[in-house]
Amino acid sequence: MPQTDVVPGPSHPTGDRIEADYLLETPGAVEKAAEVMAGEQSSGTFLPVPGETPELKARAAARVERIEVIDTIGEPSLPEAAEPAETGRFTRARVTLSWPLDNIGASLPNLLATIAGNLFELKQVSGLRLLDIRLPRAFAARYRGPQFGIDGTRRLAGVFDRPLIGTIVKPSIGLTAEGTAEIVDTLAAAGIDFVKDDELQSDGPGCPFEARARAVMAVIDRHAQRTGKKAMFAFNITGDLDEMRRRHDLVRDLGGTCVMASINSIGLVGMIELARHSQLPIHAHRNGWGYLSRHPALGWSYGAWQKIWRLAGCDHMHVNGLQNKFSEDDASVIEAARACLTPLSDDAPCLAMPVFSSGQTARQAPETFVRLGSSDLIHAAGGGIMAHPHGPAGGVASMREAWEAAMAGTPLDVHAKTHPALAAALQTFR
Amino acid sequence: MPQTDVVPGPSHPTGDRIEADYLLETPGAVEKAAEVMAGEQSSGTFLPVPGETPELKARAAARVERIEVIDTIGEPSLPEAAEPAETGRFTRARVTLSWPLDNIGASLPNLLATIAGNLFELKQVSGLRLLDIRLPRAFAARYRGPQFGIDGTRRLAGVFDRPLIGTIVKPSIGLTAEGTAEIVDTLAAAGIDFVKDDELQSDGPGCPFEARARAVMAVIDRHAQRTGKKAMFAFNITGDLDEMRRRHDLVRDLGGTCVMASINSIGLVGMIELARHSQLPIHAHRNGWGYLSRHPALGWSYGAWQKIWRLAGCDHMHVNGLQNKFSEDDASVIEAARACLTPLSDDAPCLAMPVFSSGQTARQAPETFVRLGSSDLIHAAGGGIMAHPHGPAGGVASMREAWEAAMAGTPLDVHAKTHPALAAALQTFR
Repeated sequence: MPQTDVVPGPSHPTGDRIEADYLLETPGAVEKAAEVMAGEQSSGTFLPVPGETPELKARAAARVERIEVIDTIGEPSLPEAAEPAETGRFTRARVTLSWPLDNIGASLPNLLATIAGNLFELKQVSGLRLLDIRLPRAFAARYRGPQFGIDGTRRLAGVFDRPLIGTIVKPSIGLTAEGTAEIVDTLAAAGIDFVKDDELQSDGPGCPFEARARAVMAVIDRHAQRTGKKAMFAFNITGDLDEMRRRHDLVRDLGGTCVMASINSIGLVGMIELARHSQLPIHAHRNGWGYLSRHPALGWSYGAWQKIWRLAGCDHMHVNGLQNKFSEDDASVIEAARACLTPLSDDAPCLAMPVFSSGQTARQAPETFVRLGSSDLIHAAGGGIMAHPHGPAGGVASMREAWEAAMAGTPLDVHAKTHPALAAALQTFR
Repeated sequence: MPQTDVVPGPSHPTGDRIEADYLLETPGAVEKAAEVMAGEQSSGTFLPVPGETPELKARAAARVERIEVIDTIGEPSLPEAAEPAETGRFTRARVTLSWPLDNIGASLPNLLATIAGNLFELKQVSGLRLLDIRLPRAFAARYRGPQFGIDGTRRLAGVFDRPLIGTIVKPSIGLTAEGTAEIVDTLAAAGIDFVKDDELQSDGPGCPFEARARAVMAVIDRHAQRTGKKAMFAFNITGDLDEMRRRHDLVRDLGGTCVMASINSIGLVGMIELARHSQLPIHAHRNGWGYLSRHPALGWSYGAWQKIWRLAGCDHMHVNGLQNKFSEDDASVIEAARACLTPLSDDAPCLAMPVFSSGQTARQAPETFVRLGSSDLIHAAGGGIMAHPHGPAGGVASMREAWEAAMAGTPLDVHAKTHPALAAALQTFR
């Protein structure tokens, strides 16, 4: 199957129209399916109704802007209840629709209902995936996007000119507040830049949020007073809105520098409200992303999806990692990360810091750097730090050394000759 | 492909464990894939870590409760980057996992991250769909569920012992506030029980929410003073949280009896907050449901999904309709509606009123009644009312007459002999 998700370009101002690109697969004529989509998502209905005048259509109708046929295939991607193919083949095309901004105004929740509403279940589609969106300036005027982004995160973490080296507290769930703080103690002593709660760890009775925040921040403060370096800890504040606000305030009051939320769990309004309240960078965890994206002919591309969440206020966005332990391939990971580093527009770039994680060790640094073309990222390694033969300090050192090498263009094995932590990592993690 | 989504049973109290049933498809051994899922979503990590002690596992680990193999298939349902099949075949099974409630406490957002987090992208799965969930009582103690549900909706609409006959304002978008009120005038004169905004209509400059609410409620009040019957209008308040609260308050202050939100657009925290604030029934529009559900081996079954949203406070839940214009088949529609009418538990039933819509006319009433076994529903017809040859009053009458016949066990054509509106509907809508 050809690659269909692509890195979205900068969203050149679209005047007063909203644009969305789809991968459309249809048993019939592409033009007809595209018109059905446009009708369903604007003034049309299944039966003609008296009020749908030419004036009303001119004001409110969605338009089919472009159609590029890709290919035809013999079987429908979505097996259930599509119409039978008229020609025995299903046609795949890239289709662009547009809507007048005035249909909904600059509202992100209503944008979702317009570009991703009752479309995916149409009988006329045997596959539909949202590839990219372009929005009028009014959206960036209303939603301020990441408050901290790359520069603000670097300032708070005190890390410049290289990636933040990060890790995740493991075991994922089951540690007490004190147990978590012990691990953070080890990691802070190892010189880690960034640590995050696992997304399964929130506010269970075995590890209450407040106790964990206090215990962890006491440890981080102790190390900061000694070394001048305050590790950034992304506390998972996912919960109901009042809980998220209260937990954010506690973290802020304790001198913490980051909060984390599972964005598919809280949803768009939860994120918008959290961003309005937050005085800290928001680390956006994308767990659940698989159900939105894993079938290549259904749902969301990361390129379209991340634009909405960046506008809503996410400072850090998860993108998986190269040679990860999941099903996503490396090209898709790099495209996702590049998307986060691509300005939404010239006047409101809204850049978010991509977070590379899953099966990461020192080994992936050079390819990550070369393929991304940037060191503006958080590189999070779990076992790659904790299971380093010299201990976590060796793990952190190996990651930093790998990035030194990567950014200098020095092969890892050459750099490893004079850097024993890196050498040990290369020997251990194969 | 065999039917795999099933109507969830009542959620018998599960003690202190959360349970989730999945349709799992895997290239390897089912037992192994199930263990990977359980590990990934609880204490496990890709590499063994020192802190994962037997005590911690006993406290926090997810358990594989049951595995029932269904069949094997020759090709993976999700084509991309699953592991190759060891035996050349992919095994499908129904798998139940459980987690201690204490891992997360009774938190709906954190429940999502646990049961539907980083699972769908596992290499060990070539298909994964969440079929059902069962929750400890603590969830119902924390989230009160629908405030109005069936009884409260019937009381406000003044409709008992039959479905509410409803319709949707069309054209979907492009009408002015006054244009909308004119249509509602016609519908109220026709004796309609329920009208909803289209989900594309929110607060655009061409039809501002406040102007629409005032114009529509003036019309509804005028008819109510004349007839004693106040049509229920579901105003689409989808938006940021402050907007939704403000719009809700306006509708309430104007004497309106229902608000509507696109729940996949606002997300779970948005819905929880709206429900906490609301003094009116919440009509939950499921647009976007296709991207969560259309591939039968990915994402969410309606049975699992609706339990979460009912707990969060949805009073009315969209379920599509029989012989609808989308790709969903009738069996799935009936299962979805039955799910909404199945108590979540004996002490917290949280029943929501199912909303049948899409391509509906008088014709579908008997089969809907027989297959659902209930008249606790909103039956919404667009063209089936507006395009009735006697006009909207004929359309409404035909729907009521069809339900009279259905509930009396009288064939439609027999009832039509003495009921001209029904007769005209049967002649027109074939």
